[in-house]
Amino acid sequence: MTRRVEEILSWYPASSHRTLANLRRILEQGRTGGSGKLVVLPVDQGVEHGPARSFAANPAGYDPRYHARLALDAGCSAHALPLGAAELVAPTFATELPLILKCNGSDSLYTGVDPEPAVVAGVEDALRLECAAVGFTIYPGSAARNHMYEDLRRLARDAAEAGLPLVVWSYPRGSGVSTEGRTAVDVVAYAAHLACQLGAHVVKVKPPTHVIENDAARAALEKAGVPLEALADRVRHVVQSAFDGHRIVIFSGGAAKETAAVLEENRQTALGGGFGTIMGRNSFQRPHHEAVQLLHNVMDIHLGD
Amino acid sequence: MTRRVEEILSWYPASSHRTLANLRRILEQGRTGGSGKLVVLPVDQGVEHGPARSFAANPAGYDPRYHARLALDAGCSAHALPLGAAELVAPTFATELPLILKCNGSDSLYTGVDPEPAVVAGVEDALRLECAAVGFTIYPGSAARNHMYEDLRRLARDAAEAGLPLVVWSYPRGSGVSTEGRTAVDVVAYAAHLACQLGAHVVKVKPPTHVIENDAARAALEKAGVPLEALADRVRHVVQSAFDGHRIVIFSGGAAKETAAVLEENRQTALGGGFGTIMGRNSFQRPHHEAVQLLHNVMDIHLGD
Amino acid sequence: MTRRVEEILSWYPASSHRTLANLRRILEQGRTGGSGKLVVLPVDQGVEHGPARSFAANPAGYDPRYHARLALDAGCSAHALPLGAAELVAPTFATELPLILKCNGSDSLYTGVDPEPAVVAGVEDALRLECAAVGFTIYPGSAARNHMYEDLRRLARDAAEAGLPLVVWSYPRGSGVSTEGRTAVDVVAYAAHLACQLGAHVVKVKPPTHVIENDAARAALEKAGVPLEALADRVRHVVQSAFDGHRIVIFSGGAAKETAAVLEENRQTALGGGFGTIMGRNSFQRPHHEAVQLLHNVMDIHLGD
Amino acid sequence: MTRRVEEILSWYPASSHRTLANLRRILEQGRTGGSGKLVVLPVDQGVEHGPARSFAANPAGYDPRYHARLALDAGCSAHALPLGAAELVAPTFATELPLILKCNGSDSLYTGVDPEPAVVAGVEDALRLECAAVGFTIYPGSAARNHMYEDLRRLARDAAEAGLPLVVWSYPRGSGVSTEGRTAVDVVAYAAHLACQLGAHVVKVKPPTHVIENDAARAALEKAGVPLEALADRVRHVVQSAFDGHRIVIFSGGAAKETAAVLEENRQTALGGGFGTIMGRNSFQRPHHEAVQLLHNVMDIHLGD
Amino acid sequence: MTRRVEEILSWYPASSHRTLANLRRILEQGRTGGSGKLVVLPVDQGVEHGPARSFAANPAGYDPRYHARLALDAGCSAHALPLGAAELVAPTFATELPLILKCNGSDSLYTGVDPEPAVVAGVEDALRLECAAVGFTIYPGSAARNHMYEDLRRLARDAAEAGLPLVVWSYPRGSGVSTEGRTAVDVVAYAAHLACQLGAHVVKVKPPTHVIENDAARAALEKAGVPLEALADRVRHVVQSAFDGHRIVIFSGGAAKETAAVLEENRQTALGGGFGTIMGRNSFQRPHHEAVQLLHNVMDIHLGD
Repeated sequence: MTRRVEEILSWYPASSHRTLANLRRILEQGRTGGSGKLVVLPVDQGVEHGPARSFAANPAGYDPRYHARLALDAGCSAHALPLGAAELVAPTFATELPLILKCNGSDSLYTGVDPEPAVVAGVEDALRLECAAVGFTIYPGSAARNHMYEDLRRLARDAAEAGLPLVVWSYPRGSGVSTEGRTAVDVVAYAAHLACQLGAHVVKVKPPTHVIENDAARAALEKAGVPLEALADRVRHVVQSAFDGHRIVIFSGGAAKETAAVLEENRQTALGGGFGTIMGRNSFQRPHHEAVQLLHNVMDIHLGD
Repeated sequence: MTRRVEEILSWYPASSHRTLANLRRILEQGRTGGSGKLVVLPVDQGVEHGPARSFAANPAGYDPRYHARLALDAGCSAHALPLGAAELVAPTFATELPLILKCNGSDSLYTGVDPEPAVVAGVEDALRLECAAVGFTIYPGSAARNHMYEDLRRLARDAAEAGLPLVVWSYPRGSGVSTEGRTAVDVVAYAAHLACQLGAHVVKVKPPTHVIENDAARAALEKAGVPLEALADRVRHVVQSAFDGHRIVIFSGGAAKETAAVLEENRQTALGGGFGTIMGRNSFQRPHHEAVQLLHNVMDIHLGD
Repeated sequence: MTRRVEEILSWYPASSHRTLANLRRILEQGRTGGSGKLVVLPVDQGVEHGPARSFAANPAGYDPRYHARLALDAGCSAHALPLGAAELVAPTFATELPLILKCNGSDSLYTGVDPEPAVVAGVEDALRLECAAVGFTIYPGSAARNHMYEDLRRLARDAAEAGLPLVVWSYPRGSGVSTEGRTAVDVVAYAAHLACQLGAHVVKVKPPTHVIENDAARAALEKAGVPLEALADRVRHVVQSAFDGHRIVIFSGGAAKETAAVLEENRQTALGGGFGTIMGRNSFQRPHHEAVQLLHNVMDIHLGD
Repeated sequence: MTRRVEEILSWYPASSHRTLANLRRILEQGRTGGSGKLVVLPVDQGVEHGPARSFAANPAGYDPRYHARLALDAGCSAHALPLGAAELVAPTFATELPLILKCNGSDSLYTGVDPEPAVVAGVEDALRLECAAVGFTIYPGSAARNHMYEDLRRLARDAAEAGLPLVVWSYPRGSGVSTEGRTAVDVVAYAAHLACQLGAHVVKVKPPTHVIENDAARAALEKAGVPLEALADRVRHVVQSAFDGHRIVIFSGGAAKETAAVLEENRQTALGGGFGTIMGRNSFQRPHHEAVQLLHNVMDIHLGD
Repeated sequence: MTRRVEEILSWYPASSHRTLANLRRILEQGRTGGSGKLVVLPVDQGVEHGPARSFAANPAGYDPRYHARLALDAGCSAHALPLGAAELVAPTFATELPLILKCNGSDSLYTGVDPEPAVVAGVEDALRLECAAVGFTIYPGSAARNHMYEDLRRLARDAAEAGLPLVVWSYPRGSGVSTEGRTAVDVVAYAAHLACQLGAHVVKVKPPTHVIENDAARAALEKAGVPLEALADRVRHVVQSAFDGHRIVIFSGGAAKETAAVLEENRQTALGGGFGTIMGRNSFQRPHHEAVQLLHNVMDIHLGD
């Protein structure tokens, strides 16, 4: 175990040995193993956006096994996926590749103002499929947020008992936040803090923009002179909001974009003290060798090379 | 066991031996047995549309035992039916004919904008009545979809424990989709994908039309040059959306229609790689010998004769 | 056991011996015992309409024990009653007279557009009070129907385990049906079919009128040339809709009316193949000897005398 | 045991020995002990109306122990109180004084059109605090009535198992009844009947007024010539509606009023066959000696002195 | 044990020895130990108002361990905190410093008219993290109040079984109270009374203002001549409303303000018989040494120095 991994594990003194062993497994997996940095491949876009929008660009991706293989080939830290895919993938891949079972999710055939994901998998599935962690999405700002927080607590309890770390996607959305505010720096920082207080081991948020949604937050940030100009600055504020950097916070890539933009975003994230990235469409919608190359470049950025 | 059945069963590596034995039983039953193709007789129309609309055309059908006998006589793969009918039918037929217990359903005496079926049977009933599988309907696009997905997960867990495969009817409907969009090719493909991700062993959808409901899906399909002209093409896209063809997807017949239309629809389904059909009113509303003849013809199409 | 009772019991092949023994007890009780016909005395009108409207006409009826005594004196097949009354009545009467514990109900101090009864008793009460069956009301057509169906399934499961047959009052009502449509022949037939599919051993519906609520049902009935002129014809269609006559369907009397009207309604019901009647206010609001006489006359009609 | 107490207990033949022993304890307690009459001191007004409105007039009442002492000093049959008060009072008083644990209640900081009390105590609390009975409020006429009835049934089952009698406050209120109708004689009679059917051992209603809320009830009452002029007549109708007088029905005093009015109301209640009174503010808001005197006078009225 | 602590513990005669031992631990902790006075440091502002508004002023506070250290350094009675923070803090601090696990809470990314906190921790967490008590917030006046009261009862039962005292934050808010009314003296007194009746060992309310929200309460208070001029008078009324002073009632500091204002408020609270204060932002947003100094000054006021 590297010193950095040892240090990170020390931030979870109330977690069981089994939970820490699983977290360590993720921290030591793949190309960034041991560095304290994570690059995760998530593939729940078929559920969230539908199969054509997710996989038509690279049809190999219709088969869930493609993504697990890609994650292995590229040396990712873990692969996050929904239940149905895990039923097909896990028996072959779960011992080689840490799997994060996404336990809730939303499709876009119905979208209300206040999103609420369905809880469609649980810890007993994760255990049966030998996953290394469970994942859960919350939408702070939604009128239905309390259901999510309470469902999350149930999952967290089961996970703690089963020795599985908890990865929380914290995406502000719903009638409580403006569209711009979903990625406002104060809102993203708040979302990260909430996930930590709810018991997350790993928090996944979106890269924060210049927007500040809440006037009282703006006043507090200005009074304290917190620098927020560069993305790296904003990432630093978000990481600080996660127990002063004592929780693993990773940033998502969002919609597919140019390679240069992806790399620059990751450079800023790394500079600001982010723990890595979770990158789906930007990787699996490219041909396999391009995806591997991009993931390697991103990993190298986080490794400080 | 034929190679094809063996191959199909290999797509469910996380399912138990008992579940696979029941799935195999269905795959080896009747005239299409061993071919990897399925023709299922479903009779829940009394619940869904009322007795007169379902059975007045062929009054023998008021007695649930008629349908089980028809399924046997025609060499169907399985017979899907609601609880009450199963209470009358199962003790006589369950050992000869694989029964799929339909565990939820909706009557049409009340119909809201956002449909939500009632869960009125469960795995303990299926076990007691020696059924070979459980069936469940979801309506993606309904504001109540999450209840269905979460009820489905509970059923799936009970079914896995009991060794019963899960058959999911995935019918987009509700305020999230337009009326035309219910059978739009992108929506049907999405519906099939969702059922797979929720853990279905067998997915039942409607034949997809030319309509594309979602603009982003249209853009993705056009950019990738996915052919969607013929029904066979659209069926192929739907099957691909079901884990690249590694889940059993069957297509329903819908409202009663001309024999020629039924046969052509099945030819296209077979051509596009569909795994068969589930055909109710088109069979049981005809006189017995005509129904058997039609089912035989349909089976022969799927057998490639 | 008469052949007819034996035949009727054979329609429930999945029910346990204890359930069938209780059903047999009801079928062999009283003046119609062994004939396959049932005349049941229900007294939940105090709950449904209030005490004054139910019992002021014959104040002896304020005491629940009066009704049990009346049912015995008149040779009824069973007595249906709510929990509170059963607590007073059962210890004295349950061994002589089969009691049907009404497990849900609605009072009329609050009436919404979409009725929903409260579930206020259960199988454990029925067992404790040595009842012979449990009763439950559903309102197909109500926006709240799913709650009722799901509550019914829970009750049905408990009842099956405890060996108690299930009597279902199926009364279409709510925003899904028009006021006239509540007793429309297609709607009543649908209601009877739904109760059967939900697992009822005995179904109780209202006498169907000439009205046809649903256009598609009208088309199907007309195309098939189903005769619906006389009440007997309509009763025949309803009975056919109940698994082709393989479930016990009885008809209610409704509001108090003239003796001649009561007798004619029962003649038509008997002629159409109905299994009997459930008659409350028309009996217990008359003086005791008149009530006994009327019940005897009704029984004789059903016995074919 | 007096003959009257023996007679009253015989009305609950399905209740366990332990339940009857607790009911007997209440019937034999205090100044009216053995007479079949009850005078209960209820103190949940702090919860229902707030502390100032309840206790400022006689500040000794801020301490819950004051009321238990008052009930003992005055020779009351029982003392009804919420959980928090019971935690302070029970260890000292529960063996001397039968306590009725009020298991639900409403505060008036929020009041909707359709009241719904919160269930904040249960049978396990009553057992732990050695109470002699549990109390529960229902609001027939409220859109939320079904929740109350179903919560009541759960409580009733737990209570039956634990050997505790059930006291039901039945107060029509909500969008289903007019403001005047809350104490209309037909509505109060209906409310008493409902409580009996739900399994109450003791029913508590308000004194009925001349108002008749429901036209059909008026017609039935007039046709039957039921006298309703004097309060005693109306009380008689309410008591008759409670299983023809075979359930204990007591009447509440309501808001604080003149001594003469209190005494006259109790005289009428006694004359009409009421089983006693439950009197809170009219007693505990007076100085201790006046309260004791008033309670003695009321008891003497019910004792027929 | 001091006489005062012994006296206070005697007010909870129905609580278990373990619960009283934990309550005693809090009463004997720190600078006010043994005096019957409490000064608690609560830090859930990150959840309630977001990290920037809470911690940017003194960034050391981003790390939850800072607050536990501050509470120890200043000699506080206990430290209240949410689950996530407790996971980081408890293993190091729980044996030195009594921790109160805040089991529900609300973030401000979504705020409806009627607040409802999410229940995100429970007694099993408190036990696992060796906390000395559990905390819970209720919002009397909210349309959702009943959910809170019923959730509170569940927590209270679990806590009683586990031997943990219950600390209730009782903050009137929602559509049932005006904005001014949230701190009206009658409303605060009512809120304190409700918390007591729901089973709280310690009640936390806001300092009451001159406003009287409810007319009937005003009439009662005026008629009884209750002095309400000075804050000390109003505190006295609130404390009296909490079982005549036989429950521990502490007052919160609210938003950050001038030192002089803080001290004066505490002087009045102490004068009126309040049991202490719970002070967050006013302490942890200052530099560490200023915070310790302020807390010491406040403690000394409550100690009567």
